[in-house]
Amino acid sequence: MDHKSNPTAVVIIIGNEILSGRTRDANLSFLGKRCDELGILLQEARVIQDDEQTIIDAVNASRTKYDYVFTTGGIGPTHDDITTASIARAFGVGLVRHPDAVAAMEKYYPPGMLNEARLKMADVPRGASLINNPISGAPGVHLGNVFVFPGVPMIMQAMFDGIIDRLVGGPPVLTLSVRTNLTEGVIAPGLSKIQYQFSNVSIGSYPYFRAGKLGVNLVIRSVNIKAARKAADRIREMILGLDGQLLNPDD
Amino acid sequence: MDHKSNPTAVVIIIGNEILSGRTRDANLSFLGKRCDELGILLQEARVIQDDEQTIIDAVNASRTKYDYVFTTGGIGPTHDDITTASIARAFGVGLVRHPDAVAAMEKYYPPGMLNEARLKMADVPRGASLINNPISGAPGVHLGNVFVFPGVPMIMQAMFDGIIDRLVGGPPVLTLSVRTNLTEGVIAPGLSKIQYQFSNVSIGSYPYFRAGKLGVNLVIRSVNIKAARKAADRIREMILGLDGQLLNPDD
Repeated sequence: MDHKSNPTAVVIIIGNEILSGRTRDANLSFLGKRCDELGILLQEARVIQDDEQTIIDAVNASRTKYDYVFTTGGIGPTHDDITTASIARAFGVGLVRHPDAVAAMEKYYPPGMLNEARLKMADVPRGASLINNPISGAPGVHLGNVFVFPGVPMIMQAMFDGIIDRLVGGPPVLTLSVRTNLTEGVIAPGLSKIQYQFSNVSIGSYPYFRAGKLGVNLVIRSVNIKAARKAADRIREMILGLDGQLLNPDD
Repeated sequence: MDHKSNPTAVVIIIGNEILSGRTRDANLSFLGKRCDELGILLQEARVIQDDEQTIIDAVNASRTKYDYVFTTGGIGPTHDDITTASIARAFGVGLVRHPDAVAAMEKYYPPGMLNEARLKMADVPRGASLINNPISGAPGVHLGNVFVFPGVPMIMQAMFDGIIDRLVGGPPVLTLSVRTNLTEGVIAPGLSKIQYQFSNVSIGSYPYFRAGKLGVNLVIRSVNIKAARKAADRIREMILGLDGQLLNPDD
């Protein structure tokens, strides 16, 4: 797809609870959609353990490779909340108690409730700027091209929308869906031809199996809106030509 | 946690549709739970684009670092199904049409329906063994310590249960949950002490925000069952001592 001018991003999801299978991550799909709207190409996501060296290695490998790094999880007052300190170590800087973070938390907590464990959340890497938390007080941090968010989806998502003006995007990515009852084996030859004709469009084919029935979701993506629409039209024509049905993508 | 004897694993989720936010992955939580039962430590998951070099790099970096590599997605008959060929390139071997794979697919497809696009799914890396697909015919492949599955959750999960006898696990990981209405800032000091006392137990603290209420899920994990139970008891005592409520983890 024509995307040379689009910046790239990676999401680093920090948390043993996602790897244990007990909690299903909900932030990646949010960030994937937001990146599309902003014209930022989300190229990778990593789910890693909340272990200091693991976080340092993942952040350092990512911040040179991608334009933006978004981390979720591991910021908070408990012993396993080590993301912010690990980011400081990844950048080789110390932690400092940020007066604006303390002030934000003083506004949020009733008098006497801002204990030392909570104040730990005001310790940020030297040189970092804060990310406002409109829901639970404790801010996120932004250092270089790394943005550090908590893992709770509602809080993470509210905070992300507050930093959009710090991101430089590109042309938005248009995504179109076509769904059919035909199986991949039937549409594969025609689909290859259409993909070949539209080299600036990315065509993905994702089979599904629901209520005992196989079918395919076709996802057409491009920053070139005209080309994406044309490719989707061709795909629909091909499906009808093979006596297939066009189904509602949201069914 | 006491886990020196437990083998490790990584999951590589291949597919632009997960990164675009349009499809939420459902395989990671399945694999995380299965690994716990088998005593295999799932240490990382990566979501990557269906791009040949990206797949090769991710597989080669992973197969030396972890005991087991499980990939999902990108096997099928369409142009974007490049996982199997990329795995072959990662191992530096060619693709060969596997007679058992052809036979499995001949049983599944009605006569005349096994076209060239579908037969592509019988092309496997030289030296690979097959993974039986009890639902839709086309097998997965197993080469070295890499297991290659399709992305459709129901099919992937049925296939995984067929390869469990090829995995050497360790002592199973016991996971216990304690849920409370107290917030992290309140329990943090006591929780740190308990974590310090139980160095062979991993205690994770995961805040939630639901229906306007904050609370915490505490997840206690260890291969030492007695230690995990004891740590969970201490955590419950601490919560009650702080006038907190013990809630049903499944509510």
